[in-house]
Amino acid sequence: MRPAEELRAAVEAYLRSLTLASELGQLEEALRYSFESKGKRVRPVLCLAVVEAAGGDMEQALPAAAALELVHTFSLVHDDLPAMDDDPERRGRPSSHVEFGDGVALLAGDALLVEALRLALSYEDPGIARELVEATLGMIGGQYRDITGDDDDLAELHRLKTGKLFAASVGLGLRVAGVSERNRAHWRGFGAEIGLLFQVVDDILDEDGLASRLPAAEVRRLADDAANRARAELDAIPGDMSVLRELVDGIAFRTA
Amino acid sequence: MRPAEELRAAVEAYLRSLTLASELGQLEEALRYSFESKGKRVRPVLCLAVVEAAGGDMEQALPAAAALELVHTFSLVHDDLPAMDDDPERRGRPSSHVEFGDGVALLAGDALLVEALRLALSYEDPGIARELVEATLGMIGGQYRDITGDDDDLAELHRLKTGKLFAASVGLGLRVAGVSERNRAHWRGFGAEIGLLFQVVDDILDEDGLASRLPAAEVRRLADDAANRARAELDAIPGDMSVLRELVDGIAFRTA
Repeated sequence: MRPAEELRAAVEAYLRSLTLASELGQLEEALRYSFESKGKRVRPVLCLAVVEAAGGDMEQALPAAAALELVHTFSLVHDDLPAMDDDPERRGRPSSHVEFGDGVALLAGDALLVEALRLALSYEDPGIARELVEATLGMIGGQYRDITGDDDDLAELHRLKTGKLFAASVGLGLRVAGVSERNRAHWRGFGAEIGLLFQVVDDILDEDGLASRLPAAEVRRLADDAANRARAELDAIPGDMSVLRELVDGIAFRTA
Repeated sequence: MRPAEELRAAVEAYLRSLTLASELGQLEEALRYSFESKGKRVRPVLCLAVVEAAGGDMEQALPAAAALELVHTFSLVHDDLPAMDDDPERRGRPSSHVEFGDGVALLAGDALLVEALRLALSYEDPGIARELVEATLGMIGGQYRDITGDDDDLAELHRLKTGKLFAASVGLGLRVAGVSERNRAHWRGFGAEIGLLFQVVDDILDEDGLASRLPAAEVRRLADDAANRARAELDAIPGDMSVLRELVDGIAFRTA
């Protein structure tokens, strides 16, 4: 089992080596500015770790892992636009629209999304692209609820906005590793719990969402419960789950 | 051969009957507002007419035809945003961002693009989604050249911004109809010429692009030449090309 750091390095190297569509011309610079910037790479690393734990070939999963990161990056670039959160900074640097202007950032986001689909479609199995498309539609639905203040059902908003792409990070890994449908139940449970965990910790760090509605100790308990359920799902899967356990710990105790 | 009007009616009915991802929630209203509004449906009708002329089953091509229209609609919704052309009207109604706000229009455009890919991925053959993805990347590259004023090579800008999706309208039709690769050469030529024709006539009607650089008679001649070359390509393909000929005439002599 490769440690998480090695998987992260593989993701970084693969992203840097990506060949984008030549028709994008100079727009490529804006795409690279966003997806080559320092990110945690949580989703692609999760995908690669699932492939390894499930006995698959990590190298084969790199296009799927990169596709997940590009979908995530597309959502950040569009989220940061003045039409949405109007956020001038991202990952410690000026946001795409501050660096390149609103119009170019809008098109860069669009192109990141389509490049993600192109990577997902590089597999013979169209199920990989289909699962990524379903997850992306859920994510957009979550963002819509978020910007329109439709957050009475915060759990549903989280499940869509964050959970869908985490679930797909596991799901795409299972497909690449060739895990059969009847062996996926605990994996799916794990994907749901780690996505929830990520979002609850996000709320704690950002002091919003759940953290603005519940006492701090209660939100922390929700995070710990999700982490424990994620670990329990891993316990039920045969094989070496050590790297995935580390990822759960890393997300549960992250500080940024 | 069904006349073009019948194909257009089939597209309209199919678009109205589309089931969108339930996770989009109320955002669906913004998507429908844009794709159910009165449009010429040039690209999907072209796709269906190619399928019929090539001996395929038009019904089978409806998802691909709708996907082409959704990609086109996505590009209009994002083009109209203040970050791009800041256009308050589209098809005789308020633009999406005027009706729903910038943030919702941005997300609606994103969702239209992903729904288009979902339709393209409803086929067993992943080649259909792959061709749509390539065309969309080219279109975005063309839009980028357009908004950054990189229009010295106007022919290349047109080939990307308009031509790519026209070529894909023919290409997706050929795939659905099962036309073999070795029989596609004249079809591809036809696709390139009808896309060029559409854009030149667009420039004449909008009094920009080529029409702002060349004498009116010369631009008209470019349109007529493209129409003649499109007809010549059809002459070289066995089968009943009558509806496609009508489409060429309709585009060559359109007034809106």
